[in-house]
Amino acid sequence: MAPSVLLIGVGGVGSIAAYTLQSNGAVVTAVARSSYDVLKKDGFTIESCDYGKVENFVPSHVYKTAEEAMKEQGPFNFIVITTKNIPDVYPVEKMIESAYNKDTAIVLLENGVGIERSMFKAYPDATVISGVTMISSTLYDTTIKHVGPDNVSFGAFINPSIPKENQILKAKEFQKLYYNEFNKAKYDENVKFIRWRKLIYNGAINTTCAITNVDVGRLEMFGGMDKIVRPAMKEIFAISKADGVNLPEDIMENMIRSDDGEYYPPSMLVDIRKGQYTEYKIILGTALEIAKEKGIPTPVCSILCDLLEVIQMRTMEARNRIELPEKRPLPADNYKIEYKY
Amino acid sequence: MAPSVLLIGVGGVGSIAAYTLQSNGAVVTAVARSSYDVLKKDGFTIESCDYGKVENFVPSHVYKTAEEAMKEQGPFNFIVITTKNIPDVYPVEKMIESAYNKDTAIVLLENGVGIERSMFKAYPDATVISGVTMISSTLYDTTIKHVGPDNVSFGAFINPSIPKENQILKAKEFQKLYYNEFNKAKYDENVKFIRWRKLIYNGAINTTCAITNVDVGRLEMFGGMDKIVRPAMKEIFAISKADGVNLPEDIMENMIRSDDGEYYPPSMLVDIRKGQYTEYKIILGTALEIAKEKGIPTPVCSILCDLLEVIQMRTMEARNRIELPEKRPLPADNYKIEYKY
Repeated sequence: MAPSVLLIGVGGVGSIAAYTLQSNGAVVTAVARSSYDVLKKDGFTIESCDYGKVENFVPSHVYKTAEEAMKEQGPFNFIVITTKNIPDVYPVEKMIESAYNKDTAIVLLENGVGIERSMFKAYPDATVISGVTMISSTLYDTTIKHVGPDNVSFGAFINPSIPKENQILKAKEFQKLYYNEFNKAKYDENVKFIRWRKLIYNGAINTTCAITNVDVGRLEMFGGMDKIVRPAMKEIFAISKADGVNLPEDIMENMIRSDDGEYYPPSMLVDIRKGQYTEYKIILGTALEIAKEKGIPTPVCSILCDLLEVIQMRTMEARNRIELPEKRPLPADNYKIEYKY
Repeated sequence: MAPSVLLIGVGGVGSIAAYTLQSNGAVVTAVARSSYDVLKKDGFTIESCDYGKVENFVPSHVYKTAEEAMKEQGPFNFIVITTKNIPDVYPVEKMIESAYNKDTAIVLLENGVGIERSMFKAYPDATVISGVTMISSTLYDTTIKHVGPDNVSFGAFINPSIPKENQILKAKEFQKLYYNEFNKAKYDENVKFIRWRKLIYNGAINTTCAITNVDVGRLEMFGGMDKIVRPAMKEIFAISKADGVNLPEDIMENMIRSDDGEYYPPSMLVDIRKGQYTEYKIILGTALEIAKEKGIPTPVCSILCDLLEVIQMRTMEARNRIELPEKRPLPADNYKIEYKY
C-alpha cells in the first residue's frame, strides 16, 4: 500500500512538499485553510525551478481540518507540518491532536531550534523528524513561484523515551520517500547543527529586518548589519556552542553575505509587511530559552525578542484576536488580556 | 524698545511660545516652513487651556528663512528654537547661521540632553538658554490644540568660555519676558536635572513606542514596559548619575505611571506614524555619548538607538533625502550613501 501523508499548511513550502511526495508515490491528504477553495476548484499552478511548470496541481485529498482528514483518510504514516509555526497563536501540537497516534511519525518541515520540545511535551511517545530546507518558494494567489531549489535535509529529533533505532529508521524512511533526482533530499543526523546554522541568519538578520521594516540590503547600508546583526549573531553562535554544536566561525560572515547583490526581504519582514504574525518565538524565543538554561548572556537578542513580542501583540489586536478596553486600565484593575481563539 | 525675538519653528510648542512672548510685549519674528502660507493668510486658531480661544493669531513678522528674517528685522535679542531637533537631517546651529551674533542669546526650547554641545561647537562665544516645557500642544491643520499647561523652566547652559554672570542674567531676562500669570514660567538653574528627568521618560518610553508602533498603554499591556522600558530607564538613570545629576529613585515609577488611564501616543510614535523623522539623536544619541564618556554600560538603550537610526534612514529614503542604487552594492563597491540636502 502507498505510504500515506497528512500535510498541514499548503503554502510555498507545503505545496512543493505535497507535489514531491505525491509524485514519488505517496497519498497526500492536505489540510488547507486560506488555500482550501483554490485547491478544491482548479488547484495550483506551480512554476518550479526543480519540476518545471505544473498546472492544476491538487493533493490526493483536501480538507479544512485535521479532524475531518483523520476521520475520512486516517491513520497516516506521516504527519508533515509545513504551516507557519506560531506557538503564541496556534500551537502546532494542538493542530494535529485528532490525527496523532504513536505510530504516526511527525515531520517538522520548519525553521527554528527547540521546536521539538513542545511536541515531546504534548506527545511523550512521539517520533519527530526534523526537516530543514533552503528552498525559496512563495504562493501568490493561485500560483507557486518556486525559484530556489528544495535543498532539504531530514533527520530524527531523538526522543529519549523511546528506542533510538526506530526513530532513525523512520527518518530515513521519510527521506527516501521525499528524495528524487531533482531535490536530492538528504538524510543528516546532525539535526541540531543544521538548525543552528540556519538560526544564525534567521535569529539575527530576519528579526532585525522585521523590527526596522527594511530589507537585508538596506539594513546593511543603513548601518544595522554592523551595529545590531553582528553582535546578535555572536550571541546566537555562543548559544549554539553551549548547546553542543560546533559551527565554523566563518558561518557568520557567510550568512551576512548570503544575499549579496539583492535587496532581499526575509520571511519575517514579509510577514510584518502583510500584517501577519511572525515566527519570532521559534526563531528566537526558544533559542533564548536554551541560552537561559546554559547561562549564556544575550543582551541584544533578548531585546530584539521582546520588541517582536510587543509587535506580535499589536498584530493580534489588528487581527481581532484580542480586544482592548476603551479606557486604558490602571494597574489596580489587574486587567488580563483575553484571547478570542 | 520692545525686546525682539526670532522664533524658529511654529508648531504646537512654537505657536504657544510666539503667542506668549508677543502678548507679553515682545516683537516676534517667526520663521515658518510648513505653516508659512497659513500664517500669511488667516493665521492660527489657538484653543488653549492657558489662554482660551484666540482667533487669527499671527506673529509680528513671518518669513520662510532665518536669512530673510535677519535681513529685514535683525539683529535680535533672542533666537528661540522650537523646531524639531534632528541633527542628522538639519542641524539647528546651521539653521540660525545667518541670524547669529554673540549678543543674541539662543534659547533651546527642546527635548534632550547635551543639545547645547553642537551649539557651543558652532558658536564658541554663545549664550545658550535651556527651555524645558511639559506642555501638551499640537498643531492640526490651522488650529493649535493646547491641552496641557505650558509648565516651562528656563536656565542657562553654562558656557565656560564666557563670563557666567552674563549668561545667568540673560536666562533670567528671558524667563521674565516669557512669564505671565497663566504659564508661571520658572527660572531654574538646575538645567541638567530638569533635562535628565524628562529623558527618563523620553529615552525609554518614547523610543520603545516608536520602534514597536504602539502607544504607552498598549506597550504596558503587551509586556514591553516591564521587559524593555524598565531596564532602559535604569540605564538612563545611571547615566544621569554619572553626569552629576541626582534624580530621585522613584522618578522611574512616576514616569511609567504618568500617562495612566490614557492610551497616549508619545511624540516619536506620532512622528513615525506620520512618516516623519524622529528626534532619536537628541533624545537618546547624545545621552549615549555621555554614557560612553563616563563608562556606563547601556546594552538596552544602545540597541534601541541603533534600531531608531536604521528607521531614520528608512524615513530619509521615503522622503527622498537619499536614493539607493537599483542593484544592491557589493562590499567591494565601497558605496557611500549621498544626501540630497
